Amino acid sequence: MLSSEIEIDIRFSETDAMGVVWHGNYLKFFEDGREAFGKAYGLEYLTIFDKGYFTPIVKSEIDHKAPVYYGQKIKVITKYIPAKSAKILFEYEVVNLTTGELCAVGKTMQVFLDKTSRTLELLTPEFYHAWKVANLAQSN
Amino acid sequence: MLSSEIEIDIRFSETDAMGVVWHGNYLKFFEDGREAFGKAYGLEYLTIFDKGYFTPIVKSEIDHKAPVYYGQKIKVITKYIPAKSAKILFEYEVVNLTTGELCAVGKTMQVFLDKTSRTLELLTPEFYHAWKVANLAQSN
Amino acid sequence: MLSSEIEIDIRFSETDAMGVVWHGNYLKFFEDGREAFGKAYGLEYLTIFDKGYFTPIVKSEIDHKAPVYYGQKIKVITKYIPAKSAKILFEYEVVNLTTGELCAVGKTMQVFLDKTSRTLELLTPEFYHAWKVANLAQSN
Amino acid sequence: MLSSEIEIDIRFSETDAMGVVWHGNYLKFFEDGREAFGKAYGLEYLTIFDKGYFTPIVKSEIDHKAPVYYGQKIKVITKYIPAKSAKILFEYEVVNLTTGELCAVGKTMQVFLDKTSRTLELLTPEFYHAWKVANLAQSN
Repeated sequence: MLSSEIEIDIRFSETDAMGVVWHGNYLKFFEDGREAFGKAYGLEYLTIFDKGYFTPIVKSEIDHKAPVYYGQKIKVITKYIPAKSAKILFEYEVVNLTTGELCAVGKTMQVFLDKTSRTLELLTPEFYHAWKVANLAQSN
Repeated sequence: MLSSEIEIDIRFSETDAMGVVWHGNYLKFFEDGREAFGKAYGLEYLTIFDKGYFTPIVKSEIDHKAPVYYGQKIKVITKYIPAKSAKILFEYEVVNLTTGELCAVGKTMQVFLDKTSRTLELLTPEFYHAWKVANLAQSN
Repeated sequence: MLSSEIEIDIRFSETDAMGVVWHGNYLKFFEDGREAFGKAYGLEYLTIFDKGYFTPIVKSEIDHKAPVYYGQKIKVITKYIPAKSAKILFEYEVVNLTTGELCAVGKTMQVFLDKTSRTLELLTPEFYHAWKVANLAQSN
Repeated sequence: MLSSEIEIDIRFSETDAMGVVWHGNYLKFFEDGREAFGKAYGLEYLTIFDKGYFTPIVKSEIDHKAPVYYGQKIKVITKYIPAKSAKILFEYEVVNLTTGELCAVGKTMQVFLDKTSRTLELLTPEFYHAWKVANLAQSN
């Protein structure tokens, strides 16, 4: 399985009046996770953009297991989930490095939009097919 | 079914470099929806807090149907989903009022934490049970 | 003096672990104030954009007088400050409507960028000059 | 002069519809800068909190010199500015590491609040006086 890890320091601005990280900020951590994955495997946002595509998030899920407090550090583990269709799927685990606890898991789905017309690509773009062939073989 | 509606102007700061509302900001719109629901039905965050509880989000899902651009206005329809256990469930529809399109749907689940001990309440708090009896009957 | 007012409900996500609105969020409130001003006087972001310009913020200042807590409501008073050069200046007062207190004041400066070339306009764009003539006379 | 540096990758969610980092996000970068300074010199938010104080921002200023685009990396240089009164002053320089340009400068002022009573400390707290004696001497 292709995966990557990134460590993130919590920003004070990311906490809320319960004293913990506001739940919606985990989508920012997932974004950091995707970008770390992209750097590790040559699938960064700007690389995809240069190939002619936007890849907006069309679905996201977060499942919170434990709170994270200011001053704690987290690690996001981002796992690539192969899909047959023209989609990019990731699953995430957020580990609180201060406590060792799994604090959240999540999923996202991205699609390909032609960056000029902003229309949905129903077929897997060629560059992404090539990426899959190269990387999914490599990871066996 | 208990539901409420709120109209929201998109902030420029809520857009991203694709020129549309950044996907994670929908969780802020859901928050606005919950609070509008709370005002309509006497179940606001601070009311619950005064009863002794935090109600953190433990699950959230967003399903995007269409982008929203700066300058457009949205409406969030928040629907209360009755649950037997000590949970609060909502479903959301986000309608782009400028285009008439449904632009996103979503769900959240909240649990009750004792605000002092921060421990999970396994049983439905009495005040919430009373609220359900009063409001769910009322809505038949 | 040209000015406008807008009332804003604080979002839970805008609070921080001190239990108050995180200081940086006031720049979002100023943005709401500018947009309310724009609606009142025909100087909205998209109107300016249609005329061919971006108007990025190049300076901002916030001076905090008192905290704002979740559940409180604020009002932003946005005052247009005439300037001779190709700049847009605003001053802001943020009033806590729950307590009646002035909770913050601030300033912003915007310049005009050609939206295609992204180069700075050193001269006041014609449409903005016309706007000033029409509105500043009107306000005498 | 006491100062510290931190490098920050721009998040996609930090950009806006002009395609650049939204101006208000620089206050998050300043926050990262302060925390990096705190780590380097033993003046972290949580250290101060343990001594009995909140140190809210009461003034902030940002002066933008050049835009920052997604995919670019920045460095925040945080400089401690000694003050006689019970205040903490910092100045910031944000350098775009991709272009080498200075993209923003800024300032913040913090005060000390007793964390229980939330009242303003008019005199320099003893621990902070000791910190100044130790660190400002050290830096000569």
